[in-house]
Amino acid sequence: MPTLHVELFEGRTPETKAALADALTRACVSVLGGTPDAVDIIFRDVARHDWATGGVLWSTKTPPTPG
Amino acid sequence: MPTLHVELFEGRTPETKAALADALTRACVSVLGGTPDAVDIIFRDVARHDWATGGVLWSTKTPPTPG
Amino acid sequence: MPTLHVELFEGRTPETKAALADALTRACVSVLGGTPDAVDIIFRDVARHDWATGGVLWSTKTPPTPG
Amino acid sequence: MPTLHVELFEGRTPETKAALADALTRACVSVLGGTPDAVDIIFRDVARHDWATGGVLWSTKTPPTPG
Amino acid sequence: MPTLHVELFEGRTPETKAALADALTRACVSVLGGTPDAVDIIFRDVARHDWATGGVLWSTKTPPTPG
Amino acid sequence: MPTLHVELFEGRTPETKAALADALTRACVSVLGGTPDAVDIIFRDVARHDWATGGVLWSTKTPPTPG
Repeated sequence: MPTLHVELFEGRTPETKAALADALTRACVSVLGGTPDAVDIIFRDVARHDWATGGVLWSTKTPPTPG
Repeated sequence: MPTLHVELFEGRTPETKAALADALTRACVSVLGGTPDAVDIIFRDVARHDWATGGVLWSTKTPPTPG
Repeated sequence: MPTLHVELFEGRTPETKAALADALTRACVSVLGGTPDAVDIIFRDVARHDWATGGVLWSTKTPPTPG
Repeated sequence: MPTLHVELFEGRTPETKAALADALTRACVSVLGGTPDAVDIIFRDVARHDWATGGVLWSTKTPPTPG
Repeated sequence: MPTLHVELFEGRTPETKAALADALTRACVSVLGGTPDAVDIIFRDVARHDWATGGVLWSTKTPPTPG
Repeated sequence: MPTLHVELFEGRTPETKAALADALTRACVSVLGGTPDAVDIIFRDVARHDWATGGVLWSTKTPPTPG
């Protein structure tokens, strides 16, 4: 209370999510006050073929050519 | 119309979800009136490594030691 | 620790929401076990001009003419 | 900005999602103005055993018998 | 039975939302098949002080100075 | 890209939300890498009569009596 839903591209390890949950919770408590136990965070992995920007799925975007 | 999104820890069987959908729909109709067909329920399983409370993922919480 | 998001047409009183929260929580505990304190419910009122079915906003749907 | 979350029954191919993302983005730009890059779309597949209407999971609904 | 949640900056008129609901529903039916009645769309207005990109609320972003 | 939806009790000022958006964005970039511009945050105020825990709306919970 606050409750955060975090959508991010799939592929992050549980260790990264643990670190992110810790950092986001600290950010909430630092700004809002209250206790960490009041902060719930729910992650949702999104595949690149399930996220589109500009009408194009990220799974089909051509990465920029270096140099 | 109401539409319910239900987030719960993964591991529930379809039979349990069927029973929960029935019970939640009855609760809505009992309080709000209307017909069951107007109630939509969408479940979303959440892994324990995707849900944090107090900054700690549930997958890494130590269960309490029994007495 | 199920969390329910309930979208419903605006206009329900807090008393109705209180009754619905109670009924939904009982439904969860009855089917899933656990304690009521683990159930969070968040309501979101939706105006009829913010919900469309069949491509038509509910604010502009013509109610059926009685017999 | 707009951001669309699209819940649909699982089973659609990435090609179908790509076509849907394109069509939805064009619809947004056509009505709202702005540029396609401002439109984000996130798909979420929902299994038939995770969606209930009228208190019954779609996985257990009996298809209508043809005439 | 796709369900779309559309978050957009507040300030759009019901007429614009009606046109957008119509266009999005047509896009769904055109790509997915099915009937318009199976498409639900829920709009959610977001104030500029409730949306941040790059860590800055849109209510406080300085519009670019024209040339 | 991550996108965060943050539900919190209504009553926070835009200044607090600005500080929270900044802190959450820093947390994301610190853990995930990438640039701040890839982080979107959408706040949603929730009234106390729209949030229930344990089947009871927060608007009707009796605050604990001090000592």
